[in-house]
Amino acid sequence: MLASAAMPSRDDAPSHRFLRACLRLPVDRTPVWMMRQAGRYLPQYRAVRATTSFLGLCKNPELACEVTMQPINEFGFDAAILFSDILIPVEAMGVPLEFGDEGPKLEPLRDRAAIARLIDPDPEATMPFVPEAVRCIKRALDGRVPLIGFAGAPFTLAAYAVEGSGSKEWRRAKALLFSDPVAGHDLLERFTRTVCRYLEAQVAAGADAVQIFDSWAGTLSPADFDEFALRWARELISRLRASPAFAARRVPIIYFANGCAPYLGRLASSGADVLGIDWRVDLGEARARLGSEVAVQGNLDPAALFAPPSEIERRVEGVIRSAGDAPGHIFNLGHGVQPETNPEHVRAMVAAVHRYGVRTAQP
Amino acid sequence: MLASAAMPSRDDAPSHRFLRACLRLPVDRTPVWMMRQAGRYLPQYRAVRATTSFLGLCKNPELACEVTMQPINEFGFDAAILFSDILIPVEAMGVPLEFGDEGPKLEPLRDRAAIARLIDPDPEATMPFVPEAVRCIKRALDGRVPLIGFAGAPFTLAAYAVEGSGSKEWRRAKALLFSDPVAGHDLLERFTRTVCRYLEAQVAAGADAVQIFDSWAGTLSPADFDEFALRWARELISRLRASPAFAARRVPIIYFANGCAPYLGRLASSGADVLGIDWRVDLGEARARLGSEVAVQGNLDPAALFAPPSEIERRVEGVIRSAGDAPGHIFNLGHGVQPETNPEHVRAMVAAVHRYGVRTAQP
Repeated sequence: MLASAAMPSRDDAPSHRFLRACLRLPVDRTPVWMMRQAGRYLPQYRAVRATTSFLGLCKNPELACEVTMQPINEFGFDAAILFSDILIPVEAMGVPLEFGDEGPKLEPLRDRAAIARLIDPDPEATMPFVPEAVRCIKRALDGRVPLIGFAGAPFTLAAYAVEGSGSKEWRRAKALLFSDPVAGHDLLERFTRTVCRYLEAQVAAGADAVQIFDSWAGTLSPADFDEFALRWARELISRLRASPAFAARRVPIIYFANGCAPYLGRLASSGADVLGIDWRVDLGEARARLGSEVAVQGNLDPAALFAPPSEIERRVEGVIRSAGDAPGHIFNLGHGVQPETNPEHVRAMVAAVHRYGVRTAQP
Repeated sequence: MLASAAMPSRDDAPSHRFLRACLRLPVDRTPVWMMRQAGRYLPQYRAVRATTSFLGLCKNPELACEVTMQPINEFGFDAAILFSDILIPVEAMGVPLEFGDEGPKLEPLRDRAAIARLIDPDPEATMPFVPEAVRCIKRALDGRVPLIGFAGAPFTLAAYAVEGSGSKEWRRAKALLFSDPVAGHDLLERFTRTVCRYLEAQVAAGADAVQIFDSWAGTLSPADFDEFALRWARELISRLRASPAFAARRVPIIYFANGCAPYLGRLASSGADVLGIDWRVDLGEARARLGSEVAVQGNLDPAALFAPPSEIERRVEGVIRSAGDAPGHIFNLGHGVQPETNPEHVRAMVAAVHRYGVRTAQP
């Protein structure tokens, strides 16, 4: 039996519906949160963001806490998620990073020498603003809902670090991995180590669950996904399970590989408690293929929020019906909310989850 | 039995290995061509392109013929594909179109009135350069290899026409389809009608097969794929089958929905002879799920061409092994070749297909 399949004993079972759903325990109603829920679609976020740069916001614990709390106060989501960026630990490893209008720019790592120069950062020393933000948010939440910490998956961080920016084709990143897999795996191991310490620091500071974002894993062929993405995500999850911070509180781990349809059969072995499922997969089919030992999170098309509220309601009901009434479904979008989204349509989505969300039967 | 499953009698069976593979007839060796094989990665293409604009090249039959022939002469591909652009018929419907550094820009169709103003173009009258290019290429090929005509699928053309450009999220296109499906289906029907006549004109001019590109269908949830993409691709294919030009020569139809992994089970019913499969699917798994009544085309990751020739060879062998030795596999990339690709690496790919391509057994 996988570690992820172990059920906590009744005594230490969490009481919040989000954490309970992560562990496939019965809940009173399907929990709901939204990727990028603290973000540009919210006027109150844009007001804070107008006072500082994006990285400045990530590195200011009080402001990060403020924007993290905004969607909780506005919509009553069932979980908060730390406001930060997946590239923060890459910068801490010694890779210069900036954010412009076209997204992140990094000094690209293109060879073994550049990889060898990376440092192994101590999160509390090099990224103190992250655990500090976690502590600040936990105080602000005061037990209302759990807090999700997060990090990028090793493959996705390596893709950014080699490419030097976002990309559609990831030509340079794939060229390195395909041409020099020894250097590629060395780089992936470096990111695995750093992300492990980084997530341990978030949990030690109070994060109740963590999500690992493999945003670009869906650009890989199935064989390359196995070799370069899943292998290292599994290694990361396995190390996290073994760490005292995670074991002490049975912290759920969510793995979200965007574009996961081709790899569903393989994902069951990731070791995660929850798999994030993007909107291009039918949740019922996903659950049938994944089996009952893992929870799922998703998966409304973010573009559905541009439809009228009645259509949003119809589509929310469809996602919930497709997920079925076995325990272990967390409602979410299938990807991050788009900046142009009308907040009232987010409210309509949450209301529809409250209306159609299911009280799960005992497994 | 589907129309697409009908096998031609021995007497009218084609002799070229590409057409034979399309119809799942035995071949002497796996055929190979490459999406965007006439394109920017070739110095001789860039030399022609330097003399005219992209649209100017599409609309000049002699130049379109010249660049179509370049990869045939350079690499000995087993099929030529018309040089053109999927948005040509959209322009002929009355939508202003231009190409800049950031790709196509169209005057966006955002409401029912704009859709009602579209015209139904007669291809020979409004796009005479397309059938003329087909005739010119057929003369230049002189029977060496077959010529593939092509068009965009109704959904993909509708997505461009509503969005007004390429997009990652297709927010406006989806907003129209989700908010006003009646107008959406009206638009999709208009494109289906135009594309049908457009492909008939290409076949009447001499095209030996056609490929329908549903480049953006992979951005849809499975239910939306059924409703907005597959439904109209199937309708288009059904109308093409019924048209005299297609029936007279048993012209194979290839349907390529990029990002098709979530929809594999549904694609078997498209009515196409061949399904294009992108690189994020294992071809063996695709064939197992699609059944034996349809051929497959694909699916090397285009980024694999940035690896050294020995690694390209290993990956080509993997694709061919995964496809197996049942008739009906056409080797291709899983998406268009990237402009930065080294032509010598394309040569290595073709050599590897020649080396590992299989003589197919009788079905």
